[in-house]
Amino acid sequence: MNKKVFQILVDNTSGILSRISGLFARRSYNIESITAGVTADPRYTRITIVASGDDDILDQIEKQVAKLVDVHNIKELTPDNSVYRELALVKVKVSPKERDDFVKSIVDLYKAKIIDVSYDSLVIELTGNQAKIDSFIDILRDYEILEVARTGIAGLARGSEEVIYL
Amino acid sequence: MNKKVFQILVDNTSGILSRISGLFARRSYNIESITAGVTADPRYTRITIVASGDDDILDQIEKQVAKLVDVHNIKELTPDNSVYRELALVKVKVSPKERDDFVKSIVDLYKAKIIDVSYDSLVIELTGNQAKIDSFIDILRDYEILEVARTGIAGLARGSEEVIYL
Repeated sequence: MNKKVFQILVDNTSGILSRISGLFARRSYNIESITAGVTADPRYTRITIVASGDDDILDQIEKQVAKLVDVHNIKELTPDNSVYRELALVKVKVSPKERDDFVKSIVDLYKAKIIDVSYDSLVIELTGNQAKIDSFIDILRDYEILEVARTGIAGLARGSEEVIYL
Repeated sequence: MNKKVFQILVDNTSGILSRISGLFARRSYNIESITAGVTADPRYTRITIVASGDDDILDQIEKQVAKLVDVHNIKELTPDNSVYRELALVKVKVSPKERDDFVKSIVDLYKAKIIDVSYDSLVIELTGNQAKIDSFIDILRDYEILEVARTGIAGLARGSEEVIYL
């Protein structure tokens, strides 16, 4: 079982997400995370997919994705040649009494940001690699986590070579 | 034409992404952005989808998504009741000569972070709402943007009511 990160550049058309995710589903391969957003050129969308599984099968899926209409390019991103980042929003139950201590001991430690406050809860924004966000959520186990929304990772190849599209 | 943000809580199973995005594709409705990541409980994934279109048709799609097996809950997030955030990685061509000025006048202004440096390019990380990221990419037009990867938005309802699942 290997984890792979694929970056896919596609035309910004309806249906392309469904066809790509369908190729993973047909093999019963779970997409662990997916992010998709338009590039600087609004005709194109860049998708980042994280999937785990057998190397050979992931290679086959990669080839099938490359053949889809509306797909310009798929490449594997590796930790050596890429930067990854993920954003998480976490809503935690924190009583007014606990708030100060919580902010000092956890929010500041992780350089996270508080983006919403209610009487007995906080919404915290954190960015980083997957390990940092996993560890942040883990450290919150002493509190009651109400909701988590993670974007999944977005990634870019390092350096300025091999740039094909925006 | 309205833009709507849906938050969907699903079982973390293969195929669910394909079935949800398929419901949009069947109406030729384009998903503008999608993010999906596991919640604090690894059995569940929280998906945030942004889509534009006719209100009635988006309502119909919402109802169809709600009926899918493996979907626990779909709700519309509105700017009044929610917080949204997006993360973008932008690779920009910046010569060694321009670098200092670029960092002061743009990176610091947006409180962005430089996460990779090569001889003639920088990778910048920025989080914010969609408008902030659009404006950041717009202001970079004086430079050569090499690549952009946006996660699409993740969102959570404000406050601590109405929490159904992790």
